Amino acid sequence: MTTKLLPKTGCYSFLAEPFHCDFSAHLFIGHLGNHLLNAADFHSDERGYGMSYLLGIHKTWVLSRLVIEMQEMPKAYDPFEVETWVDGVMKFFTTRNFAILNSSKQPLGYAKSVWALIDTRTRKPSDILAINPETISHYTETEKECPIERPSHVKMGKDAQLMASIATHYSDVDMNGHVNSIKYIEHALNLKDLEFYRSHTVQRIEVAYIAESYCGDRLNFYVEECGNEAFNVRITRMPPEGIGESDACRIKVLFHTL
Amino acid sequence: MTTKLLPKTGCYSFLAEPFHCDFSAHLFIGHLGNHLLNAADFHSDERGYGMSYLLGIHKTWVLSRLVIEMQEMPKAYDPFEVETWVDGVMKFFTTRNFAILNSSKQPLGYAKSVWALIDTRTRKPSDILAINPETISHYTETEKECPIERPSHVKMGKDAQLMASIATHYSDVDMNGHVNSIKYIEHALNLKDLEFYRSHTVQRIEVAYIAESYCGDRLNFYVEECGNEAFNVRITRMPPEGIGESDACRIKVLFHTL
Repeated sequence: MTTKLLPKTGCYSFLAEPFHCDFSAHLFIGHLGNHLLNAADFHSDERGYGMSYLLGIHKTWVLSRLVIEMQEMPKAYDPFEVETWVDGVMKFFTTRNFAILNSSKQPLGYAKSVWALIDTRTRKPSDILAINPETISHYTETEKECPIERPSHVKMGKDAQLMASIATHYSDVDMNGHVNSIKYIEHALNLKDLEFYRSHTVQRIEVAYIAESYCGDRLNFYVEECGNEAFNVRITRMPPEGIGESDACRIKVLFHTL
Repeated sequence: MTTKLLPKTGCYSFLAEPFHCDFSAHLFIGHLGNHLLNAADFHSDERGYGMSYLLGIHKTWVLSRLVIEMQEMPKAYDPFEVETWVDGVMKFFTTRNFAILNSSKQPLGYAKSVWALIDTRTRKPSDILAINPETISHYTETEKECPIERPSHVKMGKDAQLMASIATHYSDVDMNGHVNSIKYIEHALNLKDLEFYRSHTVQRIEVAYIAESYCGDRLNFYVEECGNEAFNVRITRMPPEGIGESDACRIKVLFHTL
């Protein structure tokens, strides 16, 4: 496989599609998250370590942490750009940053993510540096700024209350065979009603992905309120047999009051 | 408002994004439906009768019927094109057709739709021919082929069984302030389990939109099976007060057995 030399940072253009916008005509943060995942996929693919190459050698990237922090969300029909670059490569993880820019190239927000490489046959972590190491290291960009806090572990107390229990279906499962990463964000934000969003916007959302869930699992949402402007959610998966509830992911949401 | 003369048919390029594909790595038909709505919006906007112009004069388009019939669905990462054209303009309705083409311009499928123009203040039908009539009529294309059956009324017997009851949330509501048209399709297809989709693909889906539903409504799904390869769904909305259940839409799905 040969790939021509590309800039370390990739830049991809998107449009805030009208039917991907919420009642206030701003892009849903879940759809923004999907665009970030697309940008990551396009960037790694163009540089020779994308999913389509990796699947051929029985490996794939798994999203482990995602944090998005926005000062302003794109409005319906706004074109916007996602810049993405890998800023760190370790044996089992890479860290990837994002900048979301408006059409004047001004930042609307930033995101950070952590990805593990796994073997698709064993589902176990795989050594990233053993895969095409020159390429991945060549494209590591450590100088470019991404001025938001790193994703945390989303620590939760023991008093979180079960607030919702949701069945999973055909439409929730993507081509990886498990519940799509973005669905957890949508479900978590649905824990607040529409009225709440008339006076609050998401300022920062952190997701710690723990284990995959599958079609037929029931997702349980345990919520811990942190004042009026933040909440933590522990999402568990309950397999169809109804036993063996286990952690799927944890989400922390910080709101900005309008 | 002046618009330069454009071809009657608009053509828009899309990509089957990886996270918009189902477990079999084919584009979800709901996401295809969303692309069709985008194409319709871009086409009418460029020709001077799009939503952004209409909202300024307190009018908007409302989708009344949609039928999609596919011979083949785009696979993950496939670029594809949507051609769209208006083939009929009446006082209260327009009919709009779509062709979905692969990168070699071969048809993958077709779609037909019916749209009403309403006044956003009264929610009542508005006279289309009173709005910029020369423009709309100028762009009417009656020669181009769209070789699928028109959408029907989706007639149902009285024995349909309640199969699911689903709460609506913040993420379901788009900038029109009501439940997004595509969500009904996703929920209807979720009535079959993942196992079913290992041996069946959607060949044709017809949606008759009857009345809008709103955040907080509960959607009830009444199903009538028509053999192994088709089913009808009557979707009703139950307002938050829990009284006044009424029809929201009806969907007919025809499957192809693999």
